[in-house]
Amino acid sequence: MVAPAPAAVGIDLGGTNIVAALVRGGVVEAEHKIATPDGGPQQAIDQIAELVADLDHRGSLPVGMGAPGQVNPGGQLLSRANLPGWDPPVPLAEMLADACGRSHVAVGNDVNVAALAEQRHGAGRDCADMLVVFVGTGVGSGLILDGALRAGPRGLAGEFGHIIVGLGDRICGCGGVDHLEAYAGRRCMSATARSWHAVGRETDLVRDGGKRAIKSRVYESAIADDDEVAVELVSTAAEALGRGIATVVSLVDIERVVVGGGLGERLGAPFLARIDAAYREARFAGAPVEIVPAALGDHAGAIGAALLALGA
Amino acid sequence: MVAPAPAAVGIDLGGTNIVAALVRGGVVEAEHKIATPDGGPQQAIDQIAELVADLDHRGSLPVGMGAPGQVNPGGQLLSRANLPGWDPPVPLAEMLADACGRSHVAVGNDVNVAALAEQRHGAGRDCADMLVVFVGTGVGSGLILDGALRAGPRGLAGEFGHIIVGLGDRICGCGGVDHLEAYAGRRCMSATARSWHAVGRETDLVRDGGKRAIKSRVYESAIADDDEVAVELVSTAAEALGRGIATVVSLVDIERVVVGGGLGERLGAPFLARIDAAYREARFAGAPVEIVPAALGDHAGAIGAALLALGA
Repeated sequence: MVAPAPAAVGIDLGGTNIVAALVRGGVVEAEHKIATPDGGPQQAIDQIAELVADLDHRGSLPVGMGAPGQVNPGGQLLSRANLPGWDPPVPLAEMLADACGRSHVAVGNDVNVAALAEQRHGAGRDCADMLVVFVGTGVGSGLILDGALRAGPRGLAGEFGHIIVGLGDRICGCGGVDHLEAYAGRRCMSATARSWHAVGRETDLVRDGGKRAIKSRVYESAIADDDEVAVELVSTAAEALGRGIATVVSLVDIERVVVGGGLGERLGAPFLARIDAAYREARFAGAPVEIVPAALGDHAGAIGAALLALGA
Repeated sequence: MVAPAPAAVGIDLGGTNIVAALVRGGVVEAEHKIATPDGGPQQAIDQIAELVADLDHRGSLPVGMGAPGQVNPGGQLLSRANLPGWDPPVPLAEMLADACGRSHVAVGNDVNVAALAEQRHGAGRDCADMLVVFVGTGVGSGLILDGALRAGPRGLAGEFGHIIVGLGDRICGCGGVDHLEAYAGRRCMSATARSWHAVGRETDLVRDGGKRAIKSRVYESAIADDDEVAVELVSTAAEALGRGIATVVSLVDIERVVVGGGLGERLGAPFLARIDAAYREARFAGAPVEIVPAALGDHAGAIGAALLALGA
């Protein structure tokens, strides 16, 4: 008889929603989703503690959480990221442990834990050296080397979105020039679409005067309609990703790239094929890399947080 | 009483010279240097075996060798590199073990073993996450993560010279466009100098019609004379290295960069200061990186080969 996989509660703290899930063996057995409250950290933590209590009546399961922004090894959130009004540092691990009546709660960066989940239970299984990229509003990533997430001595590793890709002078959300995210992140792509529209290029992407990132489904339908601006933006995004992957392979040698995130999932297989073509064009040593879609969708964050709780 | 450090014989097989050294605790106790014979692998291996026998009369010390080009885990040289007439694959480890009467000889890539030597016994001591860059005819490097050389699942890692730096369209020796080595390797810099000279730019760098890489000391003296072409080429080389380092920090987070190689050593501290300035301009997360000169000079290869023999 095989012992059952250990269970844990994983929490994905996002700027819009909070997901809490009971996870066993990489499978979500139960979950709750609530809108992120706007009353600051303590209010959010108190609501999370209620979700945890509901998923784990006995209060005995390990608890882990992924949070947006830089999280130090002590579980403190050091950057504001997408949580307006949360003044760093926020001692998330300590606050959540207190609220849940646990002696310890593990907290990590949301993208990193989601990458870990894809590697252990999603599209990264049976591969020890890989990059997991979430192409969404920004470009987040986790780098897995020798089967372990690479954090680096200062926790700065895995910032694939901020490497130089040599495609020109577009400005990244971080202020950097020619970073991958400037071409492949939805926020930056949207700014480019609006600037082109402002100088007379017709496109269905820009329908209002707003400044928010254009939705992934708007890109999807514009591409389906052969909208020239959308086609060019997405083609350049794939080019940037392919070139970035070539740099990663040259530096650390990875065998697989898992592509997820809102835009990555919407654009699907044709987008992955373009990334692969751009990689083949730019690669140095001729080595192939498998470029595959993410498998866990919106559950990656909570599953990864549960893995963190289990000491993965 | 402290036990004496174990000794080993380290061999640095180069296209021009072969160095064999008796190494103990990272220190060269005795060495021999000969010109690389032009009669192919067996002749070279036979001569190396004589050097080994001379350094280790008892024939009991472990033997390691660094070789230029791609070396697989079985010690076979898979690429020709700088050894014309050596048709790959060459079973270097097996040939050398036979010739030396050893059951096993360790063989690795020359740049990787030299990087390992700098980390253990040179400018990389007390740092576990670093990049060692040799700026010479080309740009070679070894990446050390968590105290170990990163080879990668296919042995392709550490090709810092072939990452994209976003400085334009110069062609790399490998045929790639906009690779770091296209701006910072002496062979490519020399080709650029000649092309500029051909269209009328005056420079002391180009004194003949040869096609070989211009010597490091010629760059050094041209810089001292404020030669405009030399100043521009070296400034761009520093820019490329600084931008490349920014990409490495974003991806894997390193705390130190060790710069060696013929050109790196000749250009010295002012060159390192320029690399640092370019890094600060390009970096993402604001984290500092120490940029320091290599400490072992020409001995790095033999010391690293000895480390390899000792199972480091």
